[in-house]
Amino acid sequence: MRVELMHHTPLQVCAHAIRTCWQSFDKSDDGGEKDKALIDRVGNKYKHASTLEHLVYTFYIQGVSRALLQELARHRMASLSVKSTRYTLKELKECEPFELDDFEAASKFIVLTGNSDVDSAGIAALNNLQALLKKGISNDIAKYALVESYKTELTWTINARSLQNFLALRSSKSALWEIRDLAKAIFNELPSDHKYIFQDSISE
Amino acid sequence: MRVELMHHTPLQVCAHAIRTCWQSFDKSDDGGEKDKALIDRVGNKYKHASTLEHLVYTFYIQGVSRALLQELARHRMASLSVKSTRYTLKELKECEPFELDDFEAASKFIVLTGNSDVDSAGIAALNNLQALLKKGISNDIAKYALVESYKTELTWTINARSLQNFLALRSSKSALWEIRDLAKAIFNELPSDHKYIFQDSISE
Amino acid sequence: MRVELMHHTPLQVCAHAIRTCWQSFDKSDDGGEKDKALIDRVGNKYKHASTLEHLVYTFYIQGVSRALLQELARHRMASLSVKSTRYTLKELKECEPFELDDFEAASKFIVLTGNSDVDSAGIAALNNLQALLKKGISNDIAKYALVESYKTELTWTINARSLQNFLALRSSKSALWEIRDLAKAIFNELPSDHKYIFQDSISE
Amino acid sequence: MRVELMHHTPLQVCAHAIRTCWQSFDKSDDGGEKDKALIDRVGNKYKHASTLEHLVYTFYIQGVSRALLQELARHRMASLSVKSTRYTLKELKECEPFELDDFEAASKFIVLTGNSDVDSAGIAALNNLQALLKKGISNDIAKYALVESYKTELTWTINARSLQNFLALRSSKSALWEIRDLAKAIFNELPSDHKYIFQDSISE
Repeated sequence: MRVELMHHTPLQVCAHAIRTCWQSFDKSDDGGEKDKALIDRVGNKYKHASTLEHLVYTFYIQGVSRALLQELARHRMASLSVKSTRYTLKELKECEPFELDDFEAASKFIVLTGNSDVDSAGIAALNNLQALLKKGISNDIAKYALVESYKTELTWTINARSLQNFLALRSSKSALWEIRDLAKAIFNELPSDHKYIFQDSISE
Repeated sequence: MRVELMHHTPLQVCAHAIRTCWQSFDKSDDGGEKDKALIDRVGNKYKHASTLEHLVYTFYIQGVSRALLQELARHRMASLSVKSTRYTLKELKECEPFELDDFEAASKFIVLTGNSDVDSAGIAALNNLQALLKKGISNDIAKYALVESYKTELTWTINARSLQNFLALRSSKSALWEIRDLAKAIFNELPSDHKYIFQDSISE
Repeated sequence: MRVELMHHTPLQVCAHAIRTCWQSFDKSDDGGEKDKALIDRVGNKYKHASTLEHLVYTFYIQGVSRALLQELARHRMASLSVKSTRYTLKELKECEPFELDDFEAASKFIVLTGNSDVDSAGIAALNNLQALLKKGISNDIAKYALVESYKTELTWTINARSLQNFLALRSSKSALWEIRDLAKAIFNELPSDHKYIFQDSISE
Repeated sequence: MRVELMHHTPLQVCAHAIRTCWQSFDKSDDGGEKDKALIDRVGNKYKHASTLEHLVYTFYIQGVSRALLQELARHRMASLSVKSTRYTLKELKECEPFELDDFEAASKFIVLTGNSDVDSAGIAALNNLQALLKKGISNDIAKYALVESYKTELTWTINARSLQNFLALRSSKSALWEIRDLAKAIFNELPSDHKYIFQDSISE
């Protein structure tokens, strides 16, 4: 999986929003330590969580499975633009069948679990789908033979409040392993001066 | 697929909400023709669409594919509680493998497309998954071998405003065939005195 | 203030939604003690909070101030249909001016704070607005002279998850006194078998 | 009123999101004419409106009335941080009473309607509130004597999809005059290369 932060709001914007409420603009240090402490105090400790919504992050997430996408899409306070299986199966159609144990080659299309039985089953399904496409069956029918390890990608926009909720639920030990990895990768990709906002949301 | 309306708000509640704005309670006919005309005029024609949000429907939807679920979950102004593939694969594990052309038996677990090549590929994937489960591989790993035609079910709560949007986008000719079927089934399951609110959202 | 519960979803619907995830329908007791314990465990303790969204309540709230409305409207996971000051000032126009200490008469139009200086200032503003209306000034201009103690009413639809958040923030000692009263009145008006879901959200 | 755009997402981010769906990254011209046409085609014409949600704008809005705020807050797909009347009445307390016809001086605190009767009523209410504050009455009680023309300010974050809805409803001839002015001011403050996305939402 690969996570890239494409855009984010600077901390000053959030600090400005908070200072609008109390008209404390003169105490700002332009996103410095005072502003950072203010954001933590108001947004986190005082639970005036709507102030965190001014911080918005757009990530480009690649190489995650459609199994993971099923879970990711449940976070409804976020915007997803996802690679369509109705329009982008041509790349698979144009390949050749994979050997059932050629995990490296198949990893272009499927997320590997590390369990060779599961991964070979994924490759078998991939080959079956490829054959259907080569026969000229339309994507809208053939896609019913997609395996959930199939790799997808998305552009994902989420604000800090919703991201805290995502990280808390999905970095937990009881979360699915792949989305735990994603939660960590997203946290790591955050701007370093924003990380402290999310520190308490992350499970070790 | 099977759609059952489990609960809904009566029309009077929506009419009452609209009459709150103009204090026209004395003109109400308790959900009769006057109230119905009011809801259409204000909620649809005057685009005061928030008034339609007071009408909330809960559906129990069974026998749809996880391919469809990927699309359904993008409608974020709704609440979904979905059969979990992390906790409910035991029923498959306890079956016997299916013949690749025994579509009727397999239709307990997968949505059939009507294309026998695609459906046989689905059965092959189902058998592979079953074998993984019988080997004792944990659901969280084995589920990566799920095929997207795998049947799921959910309890789905949505308000009339968001449902209009869903029906408009998903009954369209450009929508995926299965979700078009679902859009029609949902419309048909609406209380008969509510259907007129959604009439213009449905494509023929 | 007066709060009336106009409609709500039965507990069984929420229990059914949760049982959809684990396919444990056979353990249901139709909204009885088992189902109630399940809702608390999953929705509250396990933080699978989306399951609480299937429970939706519609309240008719009367006699609250527009000062309170400013705060209530910030709870965005809810639907509001509010008495319009653009269309409903005729009732004030048709009255006679109030004595500055006739709090009882004026309480038809303003929320009393109990502080006679503040309440008399409210009556003075009310009389000024009334005079503007009697002069034939249009509502859209005259309404700029409205005092925030002016009484309004609304039909309010909110799900259990968002209502928990509302009750937690607005029953707090640091909340505005009038919205604290509203939080308590809403809690009291909940169906008795639903109250336990919100018990931990309410501050004493 | 004064509207300042504090931050916004560049068009390229939205174009990238759309190109994620169809994997057409090679056709991008980095936010140029091709990308702009794509955004209009997909987000507006094809009604794949969620793609517009990746464009997020933060405005600092000053000098609008609390009457306007009542309407603005109903746009729930947005984040508001508003100057608090519970914590910021000191500036009024420290002034001297205003002459009832000194509109210029009073315009520091109230939005003028241009109707001198209404504006004088506003000044009278302002003076009454000031007297209450000077007496030492707490803000939480005194604020019930606030007049709705009282000026407020907010930091407002909204995505392009929700902003289209706001502009369509609030630039309409049937909207309140002040919020129509705000809708125009917001449109004017948009980055010039973003304006085309909203052109069809604005009423002349």
